[in-house]
Amino acid sequence: MTQTADHHTDVPHADDPRLGEALKVALDGPYHEARQRARDTLDPAVMLRDPAMPMAEAREWTKNALVSLAAQGWGNAGYPVNGAAGDPAAAVMSFEAISHGDLSLTIKCGVQFGLWGGAIAGLGTPDQVAEWLPDVVAARHFGCFAMTEYGHGSDVQNIETTLTYDAATDEIVVHSPTPSATKTYIGNAAEHGQSAAVFGQLWVDGTCHGVHCAIVPIRDRELAPGHQKAAVRPGVTLGDNGHKGGLLGVDNGTISFDQVRIPRSYLLSRYGGIDDSGAYVSDISSMNKRFFTMLGTLVRGRVCVGAGAAAAARRALSIATRYALKRRQFPAPDGDGAVLLLDYRWHQRRLLPAIAESYALGFANNELVELLVQCQTTDVSEGLQRSLESRAAGLKAAQSRFANDVIQVCREACGGAGYMSENYLTLLRQDVDIFATFEGDNTVLMQLVAKGLLLGYREQWTGLDRRETITKTADLVGRMLMERTSARALIDALATAARRKGLEASVLDRGWQILMFEERERHVLESLAARVRNASKAPQGSKFEAINALQDHMLAAAKVHTDNLILEAFVAGIEQCQDQHAKQILGKLCDLYAVSNLEADRAWFLEHNFITDGRSKSLKRVCNTLCAELRPDALAIVEGLGIPADWLGSQMLND
Amino acid sequence: MTQTADHHTDVPHADDPRLGEALKVALDGPYHEARQRARDTLDPAVMLRDPAMPMAEAREWTKNALVSLAAQGWGNAGYPVNGAAGDPAAAVMSFEAISHGDLSLTIKCGVQFGLWGGAIAGLGTPDQVAEWLPDVVAARHFGCFAMTEYGHGSDVQNIETTLTYDAATDEIVVHSPTPSATKTYIGNAAEHGQSAAVFGQLWVDGTCHGVHCAIVPIRDRELAPGHQKAAVRPGVTLGDNGHKGGLLGVDNGTISFDQVRIPRSYLLSRYGGIDDSGAYVSDISSMNKRFFTMLGTLVRGRVCVGAGAAAAARRALSIATRYALKRRQFPAPDGDGAVLLLDYRWHQRRLLPAIAESYALGFANNELVELLVQCQTTDVSEGLQRSLESRAAGLKAAQSRFANDVIQVCREACGGAGYMSENYLTLLRQDVDIFATFEGDNTVLMQLVAKGLLLGYREQWTGLDRRETITKTADLVGRMLMERTSARALIDALATAARRKGLEASVLDRGWQILMFEERERHVLESLAARVRNASKAPQGSKFEAINALQDHMLAAAKVHTDNLILEAFVAGIEQCQDQHAKQILGKLCDLYAVSNLEADRAWFLEHNFITDGRSKSLKRVCNTLCAELRPDALAIVEGLGIPADWLGSQMLND
Repeated sequence: MTQTADHHTDVPHADDPRLGEALKVALDGPYHEARQRARDTLDPAVMLRDPAMPMAEAREWTKNALVSLAAQGWGNAGYPVNGAAGDPAAAVMSFEAISHGDLSLTIKCGVQFGLWGGAIAGLGTPDQVAEWLPDVVAARHFGCFAMTEYGHGSDVQNIETTLTYDAATDEIVVHSPTPSATKTYIGNAAEHGQSAAVFGQLWVDGTCHGVHCAIVPIRDRELAPGHQKAAVRPGVTLGDNGHKGGLLGVDNGTISFDQVRIPRSYLLSRYGGIDDSGAYVSDISSMNKRFFTMLGTLVRGRVCVGAGAAAAARRALSIATRYALKRRQFPAPDGDGAVLLLDYRWHQRRLLPAIAESYALGFANNELVELLVQCQTTDVSEGLQRSLESRAAGLKAAQSRFANDVIQVCREACGGAGYMSENYLTLLRQDVDIFATFEGDNTVLMQLVAKGLLLGYREQWTGLDRRETITKTADLVGRMLMERTSARALIDALATAARRKGLEASVLDRGWQILMFEERERHVLESLAARVRNASKAPQGSKFEAINALQDHMLAAAKVHTDNLILEAFVAGIEQCQDQHAKQILGKLCDLYAVSNLEADRAWFLEHNFITDGRSKSLKRVCNTLCAELRPDALAIVEGLGIPADWLGSQMLND
Repeated sequence: MTQTADHHTDVPHADDPRLGEALKVALDGPYHEARQRARDTLDPAVMLRDPAMPMAEAREWTKNALVSLAAQGWGNAGYPVNGAAGDPAAAVMSFEAISHGDLSLTIKCGVQFGLWGGAIAGLGTPDQVAEWLPDVVAARHFGCFAMTEYGHGSDVQNIETTLTYDAATDEIVVHSPTPSATKTYIGNAAEHGQSAAVFGQLWVDGTCHGVHCAIVPIRDRELAPGHQKAAVRPGVTLGDNGHKGGLLGVDNGTISFDQVRIPRSYLLSRYGGIDDSGAYVSDISSMNKRFFTMLGTLVRGRVCVGAGAAAAARRALSIATRYALKRRQFPAPDGDGAVLLLDYRWHQRRLLPAIAESYALGFANNELVELLVQCQTTDVSEGLQRSLESRAAGLKAAQSRFANDVIQVCREACGGAGYMSENYLTLLRQDVDIFATFEGDNTVLMQLVAKGLLLGYREQWTGLDRRETITKTADLVGRMLMERTSARALIDALATAARRKGLEASVLDRGWQILMFEERERHVLESLAARVRNASKAPQGSKFEAINALQDHMLAAAKVHTDNLILEAFVAGIEQCQDQHAKQILGKLCDLYAVSNLEADRAWFLEHNFITDGRSKSLKRVCNTLCAELRPDALAIVEGLGIPADWLGSQMLND
């Protein structure tokens, strides 16, 4: 069955034992093999931590679990180690797979292999990578990623730590000039880190070359005789951030430096370094561009965090839905015994649209990983690189927002049982909370997305009247869309057909759904661009007010842009599906995703005359109907989310 | 200044050192004296628990803190002990005051004094109250409120535990006939409880008289020589629910009974008991009515939980706003140093409407407590009693939903610092989570509210045509409104004037805002009533489907009804305010509450032609403007929330 404009037919409700598997294969997409290997290889018993474990034990458990994963080769995933080529997809798949278990373990692995290892792999020269990386991926050398400072959480460009080259000794002096320069929230800093990749402003011969990164030993790698803890290196001060709202297994801490000297060779020099004559050298002349290039190599971390949050949400949805399929409450009015929770309309409305969105995000994430692979293994245009960064930012924000919200919905949907730690929903909720903040605060990331969207405009504004601006906008959105998905032709055809039908198109017409998502993005972006153009003319002294007044509009533009990407990825994912029954169910899930999204934002469509009052009111009804239609296949649909039942660990599912 | 239809004038931005205090007095309302006494009396250092404390220590800390509060007389609050008259307001104020500190302590107090003590005070005869209550409020007799069962979380009417009268021995046999009859999530059960108020079906001479409550000893009150823990009573099995998502200081556990015998006098017999001849006697002949009367006495617990959740939200908002007034991030484009977080529009949009809603809920809660006092200290009509139950249910759901959502917003608004336990936002979030579920699951409560609203209809349907139904609906809503607030005349006058103005009325016209809230409630309720009438005709076998299809509509009706109550309470509260500057600020906060609420629901108003596209779009702009106008007084406004700065305990505010 292909996705046509009017693809809606009745889905057979007969039990299909292969349906869950077929949905899983479809959602796994190009990474099915890697994901299935992880499911078959990793032992859930080793991946789940007792939620009652106090902080000290949790840190120890997490460290030991990391070491054992490294011994199985998981630390290696994706790195160009021992002559193997780098494989970014493998790194993401590994992170995602571990996210199906304990998130402290995931983040500890992320810090060790992704950030600490990633800084070396991304910012080091080939020699530096060869020297440092093998011990990192083998968990023989624990390290930190020391970027964030007390005074500068989101504002990396203005961090205060200095890396000052001393030509007399051929060393670099690492220093924290103020208390607000103290590195904080740094994973591995409180207990296990032996070195840190330290970000600071590089000064060479009185000139600042902007943010660079250097490897700085912070603890001795060997224990002194008779000591239980490694000695802290001279000039380094380490602190413990202590107890957190979650991720108790990760030892976050603070680091500050008092004139700490390291060899010049410890400066990670892929994009800029100091030559033997003591001069600064870089292939990138613009300091600004160098900064963003260096940060750009870290995009993989952002992709991982989004994928991890999405995995946590899938686990919570699997738990809550399976519980709703066994738990009964209140007798049926017709006297047929007590009613299953999932038979209540409101329960369906709480869980099923969220499951549909989980599928949508899954397909979008697959596309993002493909783009990451393309950008990191081949020579690509600056535009595509930018597109990767924008997509990674948007999907990290979308997936972490979704995970936070939906895990809470799952907790509440399980009532008192949902609050018992042994059922794992509260631990998931606590651990995933900070995913909204780290690797880029979501609000900051969404502004980055909006700025990216506006970038194309800036170059085109001068001398265009309003009508020309509109045309240019359409071109720009169109061109960006072109890059997005392999199902481009289908998407365009569906949208065009729906545009022709006008008000006759059904809300279940995929083309109409696509058209609405596209028109919304186009319109929000166009009006934002016009406002930005005006704001850019604000006189000195009122520039902040002018830009600040656009902040909510920018966030809205980033949101509708990301939503559009997600829907298109869903449509493209369905096209790839080989199993006809799975394809049918995916079609309904895509309807539910699209219609729920439009329903939540129907005020906008009404305000801009894209829908009538009657159609607006019908959106909720259609959501209800879709939920009822999907209800009989609920178990297969959560099986399709890809978390094996024995990974859920939730006691109430066994009772 | 009075609230006129067009009350908007510029608020002076000059620093007014008395503003915070004046706002606090206004929000405290009729309970200012009681609240201020609590602020002056309770020692914050004793009320705040170290968030890193593991479960075992947390339970011990909480028990000790409770004993020390009892020694200061806090357990006594509100009870008719030692000849004093009962004062329900004092009970709520005490609960609310403790909620400003540690929520485990609050809930442990709620279990001991509110539920265990409340069951005795509410369901016992005067002799029983005199016998049992003094030891309870003095914390000399720890007890449980054993209502919830594994199989019956929200469905109390169908619990399975049996209380069977044995005439031969004049005893009652307490029994758990099945595993699903096991009492669970019972506070004080895991460690400290010595007795339990056990709810079960009362059987006398082969007849079931429905749910009743009896006092059942579960542990010895004296330690056996050489033992650290009290012995569990024969036939009683106790379990520990273990680690939870929050409230680690509360020892929730399970209780089951194997033919446990208690004297007949332990049956709490205010509404139904067994006389000396062994016959069942009750003043209430209908079993159903008796059930709801008995449950009705427990409404105070629901009022307390709502007030406690609201207090937690106010504390989080105080923390996040004060942080946003000291934390700077990113340099201003005009080079004026880094920008304060609260100067960003999005930050204002995250915090200020939530603060406005906090005020709104505070005024609504004051009215609820006044109604509680009226119902529990004077003879009132059944209608008013019903109105109390409905209002308590609606506000418990609204306040706990609000607290869950807004504390998370506060956590995220504080970035990484918000995730550090020492700043208290994550502990608040974890502890308040279950407020959405206990003392009535929010979804179940909102359905109760809707059913209450529909009750009036049922009696009036027969023989009415559509037009008559509409008139009756208007009457009914009108009559209910009459009971609601002392500012009824003002509210009606404002709404009438706005109706006359029609489209000319400003969105800042209080009358227009009231009119919109009223019309929404009226319309949603009317259409629901019509659908319920149709559903009631569904044939046997399809009744569940027919009712189930209305569930989302019922929840919507309960929501808009509660919103209307809240707005009216805000308007009434402003009328009571004596300070002119405070009144002006309250007026703006009320605007922000009303306009944010309408903005979030503007799709509904568009769909039903209550607003134009242009007005709909203007709502967001007005919210932004109101936020900017309130920004200069932000500190005074959070001072007005009434949590003293030294109660916040948040480390980042001291750094």
